[in-house]
Amino acid sequence: MRMYDIIAKKRDGEALTDEELNFFIEGYTDGSIPEYQASALAMAIYFNGMTEQERATLTMAMVESGDTIDLSPIEGVKVDKHSTGGVGDTTTLVLAPLVAAVGVPVAKMSGRGLGHTGGTIDKLEAVPGFHVEIDNEEFIRLVNENKLSVIGQSGNLTPADKKLYGLRDVTATVNSIPLIASSIMSKKIAAGADAIVLDVKTGAGAFMKSEEESVELAKAMVSIGNNVGRNTMAVISDMGQPLGRAIGNSLEVQEAIDTLRGEGPEDLTELSLTLASQMVVLGGKASSLDEARNLLEKVIENGQALQTLKTFLSSQNGDASVVDEPSKLPQAEHNIELPAKQSGYVSEIVADEIGNAAMLLGAGRQTKDSQIDLAVGVVLNKKVGDYVEEGESLLTIHSNQEDVDSIKEKLYENITLTTESVQPPQLIKTIISE
Amino acid sequence: MRMYDIIAKKRDGEALTDEELNFFIEGYTDGSIPEYQASALAMAIYFNGMTEQERATLTMAMVESGDTIDLSPIEGVKVDKHSTGGVGDTTTLVLAPLVAAVGVPVAKMSGRGLGHTGGTIDKLEAVPGFHVEIDNEEFIRLVNENKLSVIGQSGNLTPADKKLYGLRDVTATVNSIPLIASSIMSKKIAAGADAIVLDVKTGAGAFMKSEEESVELAKAMVSIGNNVGRNTMAVISDMGQPLGRAIGNSLEVQEAIDTLRGEGPEDLTELSLTLASQMVVLGGKASSLDEARNLLEKVIENGQALQTLKTFLSSQNGDASVVDEPSKLPQAEHNIELPAKQSGYVSEIVADEIGNAAMLLGAGRQTKDSQIDLAVGVVLNKKVGDYVEEGESLLTIHSNQEDVDSIKEKLYENITLTTESVQPPQLIKTIISE
Repeated sequence: MRMYDIIAKKRDGEALTDEELNFFIEGYTDGSIPEYQASALAMAIYFNGMTEQERATLTMAMVESGDTIDLSPIEGVKVDKHSTGGVGDTTTLVLAPLVAAVGVPVAKMSGRGLGHTGGTIDKLEAVPGFHVEIDNEEFIRLVNENKLSVIGQSGNLTPADKKLYGLRDVTATVNSIPLIASSIMSKKIAAGADAIVLDVKTGAGAFMKSEEESVELAKAMVSIGNNVGRNTMAVISDMGQPLGRAIGNSLEVQEAIDTLRGEGPEDLTELSLTLASQMVVLGGKASSLDEARNLLEKVIENGQALQTLKTFLSSQNGDASVVDEPSKLPQAEHNIELPAKQSGYVSEIVADEIGNAAMLLGAGRQTKDSQIDLAVGVVLNKKVGDYVEEGESLLTIHSNQEDVDSIKEKLYENITLTTESVQPPQLIKTIISE
Repeated sequence: MRMYDIIAKKRDGEALTDEELNFFIEGYTDGSIPEYQASALAMAIYFNGMTEQERATLTMAMVESGDTIDLSPIEGVKVDKHSTGGVGDTTTLVLAPLVAAVGVPVAKMSGRGLGHTGGTIDKLEAVPGFHVEIDNEEFIRLVNENKLSVIGQSGNLTPADKKLYGLRDVTATVNSIPLIASSIMSKKIAAGADAIVLDVKTGAGAFMKSEEESVELAKAMVSIGNNVGRNTMAVISDMGQPLGRAIGNSLEVQEAIDTLRGEGPEDLTELSLTLASQMVVLGGKASSLDEARNLLEKVIENGQALQTLKTFLSSQNGDASVVDEPSKLPQAEHNIELPAKQSGYVSEIVADEIGNAAMLLGAGRQTKDSQIDLAVGVVLNKKVGDYVEEGESLLTIHSNQEDVDSIKEKLYENITLTTESVQPPQLIKTIISE
């Protein structure tokens, strides 16, 4: 078998066989297939796509290129959730205790944030004492005991995907639905998921700017999951404006606590319940999304969700008292309001630029090695569709630096007011369950 | 400027600017742009093509990537001819003395053969004593004196093209009209051509199997030439069966001599006159193709063409007496006939496979470093359309090995006879002069 023939076949619009895809991934991982052949193939895939069968095979080939996490010692169906990345996306912090409270085991491997997108581990580290450096045995024990544990990414998971993604990133071949879909799915499967719920963001703050593309990506991932024996569902949700109100690590933890208490922002609550319902159904704890939602609303009302969060934080050495006393979370020195320059309706809050502003305050990493400030960030006081009086605060800047003039300017540039009234955007665009 | 953006732009179907193409070729040549980005761009070009302007710019960027030959000390318009490569293609040996005899200067840089395609230098070296190791000054002096000289490829011509071609060869991106056209044209222009005549082969023995593709390639090259100030014409000619009758170095020299005497095979004579007429017009020695053809037929009839060949061979130390005594050319030990197994009409002689059979006899190189046997080869006694009696010789094998059974088998497999009469193929398919 020759890599040349594999490239030529895909270039000519033909489907590659399982043998050919495995040959490519094995050879690319071990270095016997050079980068320049892989990039030519990636570009041919960009143009000619991949069949359902090819996507499933590519995904599993990438899974098998490295270590896989064995979650079988954990009782029950291990349901993982993946978000394609957004700004102020606190859903994982809400979802994990929420579904664990109704009995779905959550054995979560999480990452750190980069750029305008936050990372779950960074957020959790805002809780004093909390750490993710636990070994696999302890991780599994905690999930069996509390239904919930979070660890950092470890092991040599999907090296083929890492290498291929790095190459695609410099050869303008990232934006290919089959390649994105198999990349995401391979990581979730290698991390041990039995079933997967996908939160595919759409809009200015998302990787996929158009709803059409987002739906296509979601369908591609759901199809891969179902083809490789991992039940998968997806939600397409709006990321035109940031989700919820808080952007910043400590601020988002506080928002997650509020949400688990039933007092969170409407959009974050709604998206969390939607995703959690899918997780509960896939986890076999309810037979319909409606039934799942009832269970979830009940554990919010009766405090079980909040209790699960406390137990989880304590179990990983975190100070669970922050749940009742959020002032124990890192607090910024300065709270600076951003007053509206005129009266009007908020018509746009550009998610990724607000995320970048929070990053500049210190809430996010500009490069992989940047230090972050857990206390700082931004809390939106108005969202799209809201009316604001001149002088009223659009948002509050939580900063450890006094001079935030240039950040204020950036924020003003990315919040638009109009005189005509504006409809708030639809949060949940589509639900894809097969 | 970033290579990433250049790839993305071409991927999205946009035309690249002169600056972008120059940036790519310069960076690729000096190694600052890696192979994996170049191969991704080549694949994007494969899918999205290039505009006329892009092709011309790419060609000149490749010309400027290395040395160029200055033929300005030679009087007159230097017309070069390029063939896309065929089997038994003796045209250069015929054309060069032919057009030189009517006053068009021929300063030819030639190569050696590889695989089933022969090379002009190998053929000329069948003439005892002939050599191409002459310096540039001598080369120019000889062309000014005799209107004709041939040297080997020297200098660092079009390194960008060499590097890019090598990459395309292993990434399934060779077969792209704009890339083929700019590759060929860059080499001719770097070698100093003022005007160019192209012999684009079509059919089984050619790189371009379909006439449609061949026309497209020819038009692309003519357009590049005319866009960069090199008048260019092209002929699309049949390479379904070998051209002429001889395949093999010594055998083709003999056939060229016959043709210059007016006694050559009909197809080789016709193609040579067609191409030579274009060269004479572009060289400014006739104002129409008809006028050019008259001049050329005259120098064949009056022996001037043959005399020019003799002078040329002597001037580069060759034994010109071979022209009158062809037995002085290297002769194979064995002449073995291939008798027809049945009576019938020849309907197919697969050019590249006949070329491969000649290569196996030793006439061609299997790899770059193979030694060749100048004496051996094949002479067709029948061509497509001819009637053959059972037992009559289809071709004569000139071999230095006695056992040619496996080669005979290969030859039989690639010559088809039918009971119904067959039209000989049309040799000249199209003439493209603007």
